[in-house]
Amino acid sequence: MGSLDTNPTAFSAFPAGEGETFQPLNADDVRSYLHKAVDFISDYYKSVESMPVLPNVKPGYLQDELRASPPTYSAPFDVTMKELRSSVVPGMTHWASPNFFAFFPSTNSAAAIAGDLIASAMNTVGFTWQASPAATEMEVLALDWLAQMLNLPTSFMNRTGEGRGTGGGVILGTTSEAMLVTLVAARDAALRRSGSDGVAGLHRLAVYAADQTHSTFFKACRLAGFDPANIRSIPTGAETDYGLDPARLLEAMQADADAGLVPTYVCATVGTTSSNAVDPVGAVADVAARFAAWVHVDAAYAGSACICPEFRHHLDGVERVDSISMSPHKWLMTCLDCTCLYVRDTHRLTGSLETNPEYLKNHASDSGEVTDLKDMQVGVGRRFRGLKLWMVMRTYGVAKLQEHIRSDVAMAKVFEDLVRGDDRFEVVVPRNFALVCFRIRAGAGAAAATEEDADEANRELMERLNKTGKAYVAHTVVGGRFVLRFAVGSSLQEEHHVRSAWELIKKTTTEMMN
Amino acid sequence: MGSLDTNPTAFSAFPAGEGETFQPLNADDVRSYLHKAVDFISDYYKSVESMPVLPNVKPGYLQDELRASPPTYSAPFDVTMKELRSSVVPGMTHWASPNFFAFFPSTNSAAAIAGDLIASAMNTVGFTWQASPAATEMEVLALDWLAQMLNLPTSFMNRTGEGRGTGGGVILGTTSEAMLVTLVAARDAALRRSGSDGVAGLHRLAVYAADQTHSTFFKACRLAGFDPANIRSIPTGAETDYGLDPARLLEAMQADADAGLVPTYVCATVGTTSSNAVDPVGAVADVAARFAAWVHVDAAYAGSACICPEFRHHLDGVERVDSISMSPHKWLMTCLDCTCLYVRDTHRLTGSLETNPEYLKNHASDSGEVTDLKDMQVGVGRRFRGLKLWMVMRTYGVAKLQEHIRSDVAMAKVFEDLVRGDDRFEVVVPRNFALVCFRIRAGAGAAAATEEDADEANRELMERLNKTGKAYVAHTVVGGRFVLRFAVGSSLQEEHHVRSAWELIKKTTTEMMN
Repeated sequence: MGSLDTNPTAFSAFPAGEGETFQPLNADDVRSYLHKAVDFISDYYKSVESMPVLPNVKPGYLQDELRASPPTYSAPFDVTMKELRSSVVPGMTHWASPNFFAFFPSTNSAAAIAGDLIASAMNTVGFTWQASPAATEMEVLALDWLAQMLNLPTSFMNRTGEGRGTGGGVILGTTSEAMLVTLVAARDAALRRSGSDGVAGLHRLAVYAADQTHSTFFKACRLAGFDPANIRSIPTGAETDYGLDPARLLEAMQADADAGLVPTYVCATVGTTSSNAVDPVGAVADVAARFAAWVHVDAAYAGSACICPEFRHHLDGVERVDSISMSPHKWLMTCLDCTCLYVRDTHRLTGSLETNPEYLKNHASDSGEVTDLKDMQVGVGRRFRGLKLWMVMRTYGVAKLQEHIRSDVAMAKVFEDLVRGDDRFEVVVPRNFALVCFRIRAGAGAAAATEEDADEANRELMERLNKTGKAYVAHTVVGGRFVLRFAVGSSLQEEHHVRSAWELIKKTTTEMMN
Repeated sequence: MGSLDTNPTAFSAFPAGEGETFQPLNADDVRSYLHKAVDFISDYYKSVESMPVLPNVKPGYLQDELRASPPTYSAPFDVTMKELRSSVVPGMTHWASPNFFAFFPSTNSAAAIAGDLIASAMNTVGFTWQASPAATEMEVLALDWLAQMLNLPTSFMNRTGEGRGTGGGVILGTTSEAMLVTLVAARDAALRRSGSDGVAGLHRLAVYAADQTHSTFFKACRLAGFDPANIRSIPTGAETDYGLDPARLLEAMQADADAGLVPTYVCATVGTTSSNAVDPVGAVADVAARFAAWVHVDAAYAGSACICPEFRHHLDGVERVDSISMSPHKWLMTCLDCTCLYVRDTHRLTGSLETNPEYLKNHASDSGEVTDLKDMQVGVGRRFRGLKLWMVMRTYGVAKLQEHIRSDVAMAKVFEDLVRGDDRFEVVVPRNFALVCFRIRAGAGAAAATEEDADEANRELMERLNKTGKAYVAHTVVGGRFVLRFAVGSSLQEEHHVRSAWELIKKTTTEMMN
């Protein structure tokens, strides 16, 4: 164990007896380290099912196990891998476990991992087209492929049969970033429209979303400088299955307009994190159009389902919105991070996000014939994220990807039916995709006599389940009630895992109720 | 080739004759795909030296080569790899080439790629500590190790010998994000301090940086809602080697304060992108302290050099700033993306960035004993980036990492000496690290008689060099003059590559001048 007080100057001496030059990409090392990593992954996938999904470690555990200070001298890569196995893996929450049912699954595939690996090795930084033409072109191509799978209107595509369109897309790290950059574009447009000098009019702009919208939206609004007093969270209820009621939205926007505020942006969600509620995209767009407000659709999770025609209706009206984002890293088997943002008019985005420093100027950018993707995101640098997404689509094809969605939905339906078949439980909201929101119902037993008792019983059930290490289930609150979220879809999951989890839930509930 | 008008509903049929269930993480596929990827990488590193660094492709080339629409049916992974080799690689700008001297190198290593690969496969989403304790703990540990290598004061560390400190860090995707989140924290603090109701006082806040600061800083200010009229770009000149003059900073801040504005944030750069200028960190901090303004140090590139004691003086005074960011993906052999942000008081950051939705609540977060890293970044989701950074430090050790920095600097010195030895050229600013800014001097020949002629000659030299495919050199403008940037450090680079590039530069210049 090292000491935190170690003086770095003591590190400066070269190790004695090592004569050769340091080659961090030495061919033998690259092959050997990566093969060891592949062996690790192979073992990991084989054994992850038997590991506790949620680990039992204490804050600070890793620093107690590993060195507190960096080593001065190099070590064989096997030492690194050994510490990974012995100290890191036991402290992981295993999102790859087939017994993981929490949050949303982070789905994955062999093709995606291979694509991400190659991107890490090529390590290009495609801020401008010229800085790596193939990286930009591949991102554009992958986004256009996905747009077709989603049956998005060609107005969102980079290239259509008629050539380059005004729409386009970019791959970002998170949905939050997609929200932030579109909020900024909408903000700037609204300021210009309302004749504001600089940001003097900012405190008059208002933004809207259902109260079920992910908290990261309200955070993104604050990041972009919107006044907290003008960030509207529209109440929803069981009568709309917790989807945004267009009449309530209209009421809120009109009230603000009447009070001299400028309705600027509406975020509609297709598949909320809490309960998979769906805001009515077309109706929201129609309301927003009355105020010339920007409409963004957050389809982070459920967007992937819309590659199947039977789910596509959830996007009806998308041709009338300004932007839509969805995250293949959630449900399209593409490892983190990969959020696809599409906008109908890229100039509205680049108008707010463009930079043009001397050291990045080049003929291709000057020509106006290329997309410089730095102008559609927060930062400048960017990984070659398009590669993995393309590899997933190229290798598996649309039919397999649809099969994957349908298989997850079918497994969720199996679970839903099991829940409905046990009268101690209730399904709290309609299941739209592969998330089942359920709870021990009030009156299910003495320990859950009232709704409040049932809340406590469900909390206890969750904690008992998660402590077993055999399943990880998360919770939410819907309509004031504590609800368990059972999200199907981890990429190693099969129906028997879902059935086993249900057996565990039943057994644990019985134990609790007795 | 597919058609853009293909109706996705036609994709919905399952492929005939494929009976087995789709297993995206099938053990054989994972091993086979990843081994093919490793073979590709190994071949790529062997052959990248002989490929044109900058490709000769036209906008839209890739869509002309690959399908315009996604395939319906799956294909062997070999087909995907074949298209990667035949269509993607020829359109890449090869950042991994030893003949790449543009921008800053994106350095890399076998250990980093292996770490990133494992992160892609485990695919955890460590938004909260509980969502993957080891991912958060590893990030905290890796940042604390790096802090010690940089000899940062313990006030920036997550854990010190005395236990958990108030400082801490987070790994982000880009420097721009580090700037944005600290700007937002500083903005909110200034608004509170000046008694602003909501964001009504936002138009009175002012921010400051030298005119050599990366353009992304000025963009981040706009994203955070600062008024463009109050974003100050302080002029620099040759007299300070283009570093920020504290006297000029004081003048600007005082003038704003006198005019009723609120000086809020100063960004100091250690190693500017344009010419590697260094702003005096301590003196800037002293000026900013008079106005209680937040000081951020952007050491994206040159921060890595500060792990060597002989470069550490560039950070002198860092104990008096509020935050510092540096990017191991630039010069510390850790593949994209990896930007380390340190803050002295994490509460100032989380106060602006915290969210607490029901579905993420858990005992560990409630206890206050853990860091939930989502509260120090824009988004919620996050890759396990700490793993690759730890693997680099654990495997190579501090001494090797220092050797790597020193070797790059030594090669840059070789190049600088070669330039200085040819009287047709001049080194334009002092070389601080491994970037040499040089140009054909005015009077070097008939084609470069005046400074303006020399500008044109240098532009032509750059274009001729880059067209050969044997080197990629970028440019900037310093003091109004067109200057070539020669950045040493691509991870496959050896001294003979630098010498060959110089021979090419001399030869091309001679051809041009005749």
